[in-house]
Amino acid sequence: MTAQDIYMDIERIRETSPLIHNITNYVVMNNTANALLALGASPVMAHAVEEVEEMTGIARALVINIGTLSETWVRAMMLAVRKAGDLGIPIVLDPVGAGATSYRTRICHELIHAVPPAIIRGNASEIMALTTAEAKTKGVDSSDSSGAALEAARQLNAATGSVVCISGEVDYIVGEGMVITVENGHALMTKVTGMGCTATAVCGAFAAVNPSFSAAAAGAMTVMGIAGEMAAESSQGPGSQQVDFLDVLFRLSEDDLAGRIRIGEG
Amino acid sequence: MTAQDIYMDIERIRETSPLIHNITNYVVMNNTANALLALGASPVMAHAVEEVEEMTGIARALVINIGTLSETWVRAMMLAVRKAGDLGIPIVLDPVGAGATSYRTRICHELIHAVPPAIIRGNASEIMALTTAEAKTKGVDSSDSSGAALEAARQLNAATGSVVCISGEVDYIVGEGMVITVENGHALMTKVTGMGCTATAVCGAFAAVNPSFSAAAAGAMTVMGIAGEMAAESSQGPGSQQVDFLDVLFRLSEDDLAGRIRIGEG
Amino acid sequence: MTAQDIYMDIERIRETSPLIHNITNYVVMNNTANALLALGASPVMAHAVEEVEEMTGIARALVINIGTLSETWVRAMMLAVRKAGDLGIPIVLDPVGAGATSYRTRICHELIHAVPPAIIRGNASEIMALTTAEAKTKGVDSSDSSGAALEAARQLNAATGSVVCISGEVDYIVGEGMVITVENGHALMTKVTGMGCTATAVCGAFAAVNPSFSAAAAGAMTVMGIAGEMAAESSQGPGSQQVDFLDVLFRLSEDDLAGRIRIGEG
Repeated sequence: MTAQDIYMDIERIRETSPLIHNITNYVVMNNTANALLALGASPVMAHAVEEVEEMTGIARALVINIGTLSETWVRAMMLAVRKAGDLGIPIVLDPVGAGATSYRTRICHELIHAVPPAIIRGNASEIMALTTAEAKTKGVDSSDSSGAALEAARQLNAATGSVVCISGEVDYIVGEGMVITVENGHALMTKVTGMGCTATAVCGAFAAVNPSFSAAAAGAMTVMGIAGEMAAESSQGPGSQQVDFLDVLFRLSEDDLAGRIRIGEG
Repeated sequence: MTAQDIYMDIERIRETSPLIHNITNYVVMNNTANALLALGASPVMAHAVEEVEEMTGIARALVINIGTLSETWVRAMMLAVRKAGDLGIPIVLDPVGAGATSYRTRICHELIHAVPPAIIRGNASEIMALTTAEAKTKGVDSSDSSGAALEAARQLNAATGSVVCISGEVDYIVGEGMVITVENGHALMTKVTGMGCTATAVCGAFAAVNPSFSAAAAGAMTVMGIAGEMAAESSQGPGSQQVDFLDVLFRLSEDDLAGRIRIGEG
Repeated sequence: MTAQDIYMDIERIRETSPLIHNITNYVVMNNTANALLALGASPVMAHAVEEVEEMTGIARALVINIGTLSETWVRAMMLAVRKAGDLGIPIVLDPVGAGATSYRTRICHELIHAVPPAIIRGNASEIMALTTAEAKTKGVDSSDSSGAALEAARQLNAATGSVVCISGEVDYIVGEGMVITVENGHALMTKVTGMGCTATAVCGAFAAVNPSFSAAAAGAMTVMGIAGEMAAESSQGPGSQQVDFLDVLFRLSEDDLAGRIRIGEG
C-alpha cells in the first residue's frame, strides 16, 4: 500500500460523504462526529431500538463501540448489527474495555457471533480478551505482549474472518495470511481521550469506500497516525492536540501522507 | 432589525443570565452548554422524568433536541413541553434527522401537537419532513429546494403558529406573513458537529429575553453567523473553528454585529 | 500544605496512573476524562448495573456526579458506592444541582447515607441544599452566603465524616475541626462548562494517592485553580480556556505551583 492508494480512499470519502452510523459511547461522541466530518464523511448517532435498523439501512458503514454500554444500548447494537449483516453493510467493532469486566467481554462475543465484523479494532489487551483462554494466558506474559496479541489477532481472524487491528505504538492489521504494520503515531495521542474510538470510526469511513477491509483498516490507521504526528508538532499538550488533530485531518494532503507514511507488509 | 436591536438582546442575556433548560442529544451537550455560557446564559441539562417538570418550571426557555432520542427521553420531553406550555415558557424545537427515520418524524409531530413551539429550527430537509405529503413531494424537487422548504415552513407556521427557522447558506425565519433572511455564516461551520444544535440553543436564549420569537430567531441566527465568520478568519480548520467560535461569542460587541450584519426582511 | 506536598501527589498520580471510575454526567464526560488523562490518571466511565461493581472493584477511586441523573443511573451509582464502601475505595461525590430539584436533593441524601463519601465537592448552594432546614434557611440570607455555606459544610462534615469542599472564588475545604482555603482560580473558569465536575474528578485522583482526604481535596483545588489561572493568561475566551487548561495541567511543574499557590489553613 502506498500514500497514493490511501489518498484515493480519502478522496472517495470527501467526494461521496458516506453516512457512517455510530452506536458509540457518550465520552467520545462529539470527537468521533467531528473527526468523521473533518475527514469528509457524514456521521450519524442513533441508538433507539425504534429506529436503529432504519438508520443502519441508509448508512454505508456501521460503527459499534461498547465504551459505555448498557442493556438497552446492547439491544440496539444487536438489531443494528443484524440489519447490517442482512444488507451487507460493513461493521466495525471497538471492544472498549473488553477484559476489564466480564459483561464487556460477553457482549463482544455476542456481537461478533451474531454477525462477524468487517474490522475489529482494539488495543492489545482488548483483542486478547476476545480470544480463547489459552491466548489470554499468553497475553499476561508481559515478556512478549505484542507477540501474544498478534497470536490472539490471528486466532480471532481465523475464527471470524474479521480483519483485526491492534493499535499501539505499532499498529498491526491482521487479515488472512497477512499482517500490515503501521508505525505512524505520537505518544501525545494516548493523552487525549477517545483517539482509539476515533480510529475505529475512521476505519468505518474507509470501509465504506474500500471493500478490502485490510486496506481500509491500514489506510485508516495510517491517516490517524500521520494526523496525530502533525498535530503533535504544533500542539502544546493534549488540549491543543485534540483541536489540531481535527484541523490537520481536514486539510490532509497526499504530500502529507507521502512524506510520512511508515507502513510495512509481512 | 438592526445590529443595535440584536445587541440589546445580547445585553439582556448577559445581564439576566436566563436559565435555559436543554433536553438535547449526547453529541452536542458540551458544545451547547459552552455556547450558552459564552453568550451569557445559564444552561442546565436534565432529562429524568422524576425532575424534568420541576426543572422546566424554573427555566426561562426550554430547548428540545431529538438528535439521540429514545423512549425514556421522549417521555421526559413530553412532560417538559406540557409544563412549559402550562407556564408560558417558550419552547424551541430542533427536529434533528426528521425524515431520516419514521420514528423521528413521528416524535416531532407528537411534540409539536402537544404544545406548539415558539420556534422550530432545522435544515431544509428536516423542516420539509415536518409538513404534509404534498410539501414533501415538492421537497424532493432539487431544482427548487429552497423554494420548497420555504413553502413547507409557511405551511408549518400556518398550522402551528410556530416561527420556523430554516438554516442553510441563507437562513430563513418564517413568521405569519413575513420572512426574514440572514446571510451571515461560513462554510466551515458545517464541518463542526452540532453547530445547528447550538443555533437552536441560542434561539432559546434569545426567546428567553425577547417575546417576539421571529426577532429572537433572527437575532440568534445573525449572532451564530457572525461569530462563525469571525471564528473562520482566525481558525485553521474545524477543530480551531469550534474553539474560536466560543471565544468570539464571549467577546462579541455591537461593532462586530454592525460591521457584518446581513439581514433582510420580505 | 506546601507546593512541594501537592507536587508529590501529582508525581504519584503520574507514576501510578490510578484508575478512576467515573459515573458522571453526559455533558462533561469528555472533559473529565481528558483532565484525568492530562493529570496522569486513568479514567474509566461505566454505568451499566451489569458491570458497575466489577469496575469499581478494580478502581482506586470512585467519582459520582449526578449532573444528568436518571433512575437507572442512580441504581448503578448505589451499587458502585456500596462496592466502594465494602472495599474501602474512596468516593468523591459531586451533588450537581442539589436544591434545584427535590429529586437531586433526595438522591444525594440517599447516596451519602448509603456510604459517606471521602469528599463531597459542590458550590455553596449545592452544599447548603444537603444540610438541614435550619442551615438552608441561613443559606438564603444573602448578606452572609459564604458564612452560611461554611456552617452547612461543618454540619455536613459532622454528620457524615466526609471532607466537604465548597468551591467558589475562594474554595473552602472543611474537615473535622479545620478549614483550608484556596484562593487560586480565575473568573473565566466559570464560563467553561464542567470545570466544577472536573475539579471533583481531580479530587478523585488525589484521593487515590493520598489517604488524607482534606489534603487531597486541597491539593486538587489548588491544582485546578493554578491551571485555570495559567490557562486564562494565554487564552482568548472560554473556548481556548478549556483547551489551554488541559495543556497546562499536562505540563504543570512544581515551580508553577510554588510561584502561585495561595492556600491558607484556619
